[in-house]
Amino acid sequence: MAKSHALRSNMGIDYVVVFRFATTDKVKATERFEELLRRLASVGLATEVRNGEHHSILIFVRVSSEEHMFGEIYRSRVKDWVHGVRSAEPTRETRKALEHDPMTEAERLRIIYQLITNPQQEGGAGITPRKGEWENVESVFALHDHVYNKEWITKWSTQWLLTMEDIDEIRNRLGEKIAFYFAFTQTYFTFLLFPAGCGVFAWAFLGYYSSFYAVLCSLWCVVFTEWWKHQEHDLAIRWGVRGVSSIETKRHKFKPSIMSVDSATGEKQQTFPATDRLQRQLLQVPFAIAAVLVLGTMIVTCFGIEIFISEVYNGPLKSVLVYLPTVLLTTGLPMLTGMLTTFATRLNDFENYETESHYNSALTSKLFILNLITSYLPVCLTAFVYVPFGSLIVPYLDIFSLTVRPFAENEKQLKAPKHPSQFTINPARLRNQMFYFAVTSQIVNFVLEVIVPYAKRQGFIRMKQYQSSRAQKAGGIAPSAGADDPPDEKEFLARVRSEAEMDIYNVNDDLKEMVVQYGYLALFSVIWPLVPVSFLINNWIELRGDAVKICVEMQRPTPERADSIGPWLDALSFLTWMGSITMSALVYMFSNDGVGPDGTPTDIKAWGLLLAIFFSEHIYLIARWAVATAISKLDSPGRQKSRRDRYLTRQKLFEESLDQTHKLPSLAEKGAEITRSSLEEEARASTLQGGATPEERFWARQRGWKEAAQVGKGFIERTMPDENEAAKGKKEL
Amino acid sequence: MAKSHALRSNMGIDYVVVFRFATTDKVKATERFEELLRRLASVGLATEVRNGEHHSILIFVRVSSEEHMFGEIYRSRVKDWVHGVRSAEPTRETRKALEHDPMTEAERLRIIYQLITNPQQEGGAGITPRKGEWENVESVFALHDHVYNKEWITKWSTQWLLTMEDIDEIRNRLGEKIAFYFAFTQTYFTFLLFPAGCGVFAWAFLGYYSSFYAVLCSLWCVVFTEWWKHQEHDLAIRWGVRGVSSIETKRHKFKPSIMSVDSATGEKQQTFPATDRLQRQLLQVPFAIAAVLVLGTMIVTCFGIEIFISEVYNGPLKSVLVYLPTVLLTTGLPMLTGMLTTFATRLNDFENYETESHYNSALTSKLFILNLITSYLPVCLTAFVYVPFGSLIVPYLDIFSLTVRPFAENEKQLKAPKHPSQFTINPARLRNQMFYFAVTSQIVNFVLEVIVPYAKRQGFIRMKQYQSSRAQKAGGIAPSAGADDPPDEKEFLARVRSEAEMDIYNVNDDLKEMVVQYGYLALFSVIWPLVPVSFLINNWIELRGDAVKICVEMQRPTPERADSIGPWLDALSFLTWMGSITMSALVYMFSNDGVGPDGTPTDIKAWGLLLAIFFSEHIYLIARWAVATAISKLDSPGRQKSRRDRYLTRQKLFEESLDQTHKLPSLAEKGAEITRSSLEEEARASTLQGGATPEERFWARQRGWKEAAQVGKGFIERTMPDENEAAKGKKEL
Repeated sequence: MAKSHALRSNMGIDYVVVFRFATTDKVKATERFEELLRRLASVGLATEVRNGEHHSILIFVRVSSEEHMFGEIYRSRVKDWVHGVRSAEPTRETRKALEHDPMTEAERLRIIYQLITNPQQEGGAGITPRKGEWENVESVFALHDHVYNKEWITKWSTQWLLTMEDIDEIRNRLGEKIAFYFAFTQTYFTFLLFPAGCGVFAWAFLGYYSSFYAVLCSLWCVVFTEWWKHQEHDLAIRWGVRGVSSIETKRHKFKPSIMSVDSATGEKQQTFPATDRLQRQLLQVPFAIAAVLVLGTMIVTCFGIEIFISEVYNGPLKSVLVYLPTVLLTTGLPMLTGMLTTFATRLNDFENYETESHYNSALTSKLFILNLITSYLPVCLTAFVYVPFGSLIVPYLDIFSLTVRPFAENEKQLKAPKHPSQFTINPARLRNQMFYFAVTSQIVNFVLEVIVPYAKRQGFIRMKQYQSSRAQKAGGIAPSAGADDPPDEKEFLARVRSEAEMDIYNVNDDLKEMVVQYGYLALFSVIWPLVPVSFLINNWIELRGDAVKICVEMQRPTPERADSIGPWLDALSFLTWMGSITMSALVYMFSNDGVGPDGTPTDIKAWGLLLAIFFSEHIYLIARWAVATAISKLDSPGRQKSRRDRYLTRQKLFEESLDQTHKLPSLAEKGAEITRSSLEEEARASTLQGGATPEERFWARQRGWKEAAQVGKGFIERTMPDENEAAKGKKEL
Repeated sequence: MAKSHALRSNMGIDYVVVFRFATTDKVKATERFEELLRRLASVGLATEVRNGEHHSILIFVRVSSEEHMFGEIYRSRVKDWVHGVRSAEPTRETRKALEHDPMTEAERLRIIYQLITNPQQEGGAGITPRKGEWENVESVFALHDHVYNKEWITKWSTQWLLTMEDIDEIRNRLGEKIAFYFAFTQTYFTFLLFPAGCGVFAWAFLGYYSSFYAVLCSLWCVVFTEWWKHQEHDLAIRWGVRGVSSIETKRHKFKPSIMSVDSATGEKQQTFPATDRLQRQLLQVPFAIAAVLVLGTMIVTCFGIEIFISEVYNGPLKSVLVYLPTVLLTTGLPMLTGMLTTFATRLNDFENYETESHYNSALTSKLFILNLITSYLPVCLTAFVYVPFGSLIVPYLDIFSLTVRPFAENEKQLKAPKHPSQFTINPARLRNQMFYFAVTSQIVNFVLEVIVPYAKRQGFIRMKQYQSSRAQKAGGIAPSAGADDPPDEKEFLARVRSEAEMDIYNVNDDLKEMVVQYGYLALFSVIWPLVPVSFLINNWIELRGDAVKICVEMQRPTPERADSIGPWLDALSFLTWMGSITMSALVYMFSNDGVGPDGTPTDIKAWGLLLAIFFSEHIYLIARWAVATAISKLDSPGRQKSRRDRYLTRQKLFEESLDQTHKLPSLAEKGAEITRSSLEEEARASTLQGGATPEERFWARQRGWKEAAQVGKGFIERTMPDENEAAKGKKEL
């Protein structure tokens, strides 16, 4: 019963701050700890302290009065409005504003987190976890709402399709950034139904490399990308975060080099000149080249070894050696990628971006390049190097045979063909590779991402329980952290301690996974048209798996706002574009069994390939333009809402501003005859006196519009006298 | 003296309305005329009437009181502000607002024009010249300011470069739309200096088809297009018209099919469904095909005849017949283009656009396609059909010889080569053609545009003077329009009558001319690298010529606002893109004398050509991205101004909105200890009473942050007791 209560209630705690003092000396630790508590109290947060595990202290934080909370929320909303994120001004009466537009849990947690982490001059406590003077603060996290989590998992695992309301619920709980990930994956999942259908049809009736499938799939990619842009825009309005990315938050680590005063606004600014940054950004070029070389060499080497062993080598240990490249790749590639990622992050730090959003988008694009190489280079090598040039290159794989020669029992086992015609290309190789990336690797990923950590955690907990029970039996020296807990909090604190040990969820990793998956579909799926079917199944599970992962294996994520999936959107567009090139190239090279029975590509003509690419790419560009235009014409609930808000705001401003002039008669309202006639009288008078200017005389000839009309009629009469007479003539007849 | 006064003063007239009743019966004419005067008076305009030429009446219009004028201007400015065109709210006190931000002549004239032409429900007089019930109203135009015009022409013709202030002056006088044309041409002119330099260098040292020139010129095109986008944005801010294009003005001719209420804003709307319009827009496809076929056939036929006559035919009358295709083209092409333009306009009317801006951009894109064909197809034919395939096609030109045969004196004169090897390509043809388009045709255009109309006008005036003097001598029946003029107005009215006969200036024609010229540069200038030099000289004259044209041959243009050169910007980008394809193709095909001495292209390989295009196009795309990114980093006076305005507006809104909450203590301002301690007291009390919830008990363990800090210190002490002892040990040592 106690345990279930520990899961049911969070004791009104908003955040838990973990203070770890293992590596700090005692005096300093005590000092920092006191300062931390003082700072938290100074921004109106109440604290309770409990013992934590492994040299750490748990500080429980909550807002001390709801009235203050309201004030902070109102302030944040006004800031949004002023920056154009909200189109309507929030009601000035705070309580009313909250009734009209109730606060979500995500908004509350976001604002409290900002209160803890914002710099002191902006009204926060200035606690920056793991950075600078606050390196003792290991993490700041909210506690899971286990009741809700259970409901969430149950609901999703029994539901075929997620509705908009499910995503809204995520947004209300975990913030817009994570909600955007789920909305994207859900949209992608729904859209996959179409290529999956086409794929099954093409697989069953048209075989591999069907141009029918390639065209439909590429068009689908265009529609999907453009639709998502539309959808994203709409969601941002629905969630009231449109334009949030333009409210820049300064990076804590930004190092300004110049202190200047903006000549336009008069604001004091600490800036870093764009030209200096450009110089640093130029380092990306050697970095990209190095990455391509390092990863490329690794992949090409393994590729070469694999082909040599599987298709050339016939010596001893072949059955074992055949796994060598896989082993090399699975151990070496993550290691290299890890190193390069660390390097990319350092480079990104060095580029010294001013705001979080710039920093993240620059980092994302760097990591995207690494992913491009590791994910797609192997398939590209097989398709565009091995198949067309295999018979030329493979003979040179001889060099490997030199290393194997010592093990060979006789020369026959090394049948490295000296003559191209002796070597045959394995036509199924490309398909097998695609199968690996579309099915095997997705399953492996899922296992690594969800199941392994879960098992590890469970094992870890068991081990600890066993250790502590043994320690208790032995009367060991190190008392467990929970030894002095008040009995009625024991279970609850145990749960908090376990949550404190969990990893921090990074939504970018999941987004990256989805975008890389989309890349396989857009670039290569024509090789094996069942790819979308596999992805469809995978993503159904992935969506639920990610929910479980967030609930069970990660600390509760701190809500963040976003109005888009950010730089991944560009990655999507880029992959779709590339897809228009690779798909057409693959279809041209391989359809109608382009690979002849003798293994040398029979009919591949360079000009034919280039022409296919040229047309396909330009058709893509035109289709993208047409689809974007068509989609931009669509209305949506979000757009309607923003139109209504804008209309009301305009109406209000217009009325307020024109209040003043209502007293003045408008030109249109009041005929000007009174003024005119008096003016004319004056003019006539002055004409009589002879002192009038030519201008005055000019305007004094006619008195009011009626006189002018008379004069005009006279002109008409004079110019068309005949007509009158003709009419008379008619009458007389 | 009287004449010079007539040129010096405009008698305070704002607009002249020409009412022509030649084709209307008298009763109706009188009625419409009276209604016209009544309407003008109803919006507060004073009128004077004088006799006009050829069955017309001149109505002189001015605003009757400055006070009303101010009101209208303030209203217009508030509308701009509400739509986001002005970033700052205009001062409420009207007079003050005008002192702070004085009214330009263009603004005044624009507002009065709107007052005359706007529908009655929007507060205007609803006079729509030449449309519907107002077909009698031939034109509404302002009088030229001859003093300023003279200054303008004198200044520009004696000045090498135009400054920003000169363009500002145009904007103040003639409105933003025309100012954008001059600003664009001036920027283009300045930018031309670079390719002109490269061109001269390439021509002198590298010969034709130099890849050096092609690369620099294409990059220049990218930089120019992107820079102009930046410049345009800046100018729009400078002139306070940013976003003006989003204030939609309804077209008078729009025919709604559905009357609906916008569910979002509750506005009543008369709409035309986008799907219906799409159906109508699909007619563009057959139209485009028909245009290509008609114009293409015409051009191809003339092209064929020309080649036949100049290079195959050797019979009688060759010296005369050689001009036949030119005559056919110069008579037939304008006729066909005219017909197609009329058709395009009808099609555009049929597509029934709701706003003027949509209508214009759709029409522009249609006309742009026509221009693409007529301007660039001939060069493309020579480069990509005549040269590579000439030796295959020319023998088939035999069919022409059948028609010429009757005139041939003997068989020898028709030496139509049956065998390809007998026919030789003329390598200079392409260059001659380029020379024609870059020099001859530019001069012809200038003559047709500026000099011919001027000469025509002068001749016309002479003829009239001669006629009237003869009529006076003969005591002719038809009295001249000026017969009854008051003597002191005679000269002035003669001037007005002559201005009333002038054409209406259309800035789009001039913009089209510039964009088409830019097209030659971007697409083909590698053929003859002196092209930019020719354009440089031409544009210096063109800028001044256009000024003269506006001053002397056209009615004073009614000021219009614009925040861009509109759809021509897309045309620029499109031509730059195409340029990356044609330039690389031309360089690949013709550099290193790709045309062999025997006239058959020796080394042109399809795959090489396609590869060159592929690389060039992708380099273009990357360069465009890089240049756009770099340029977006640049600051500019306009952007600074808009930043300052936005900052001030935000500041103001923020202060206004937060006024309310200043009474509430913010979380950050007030330590929460007082509240906390009282809360805790309560909690402790309830704990003592035993009725506390687990939550209350949890939060009641520590009293204030100081107690929490004590407890925390205790934890640290307990976990690290050794350290203290170690410190002691150290002391003892």
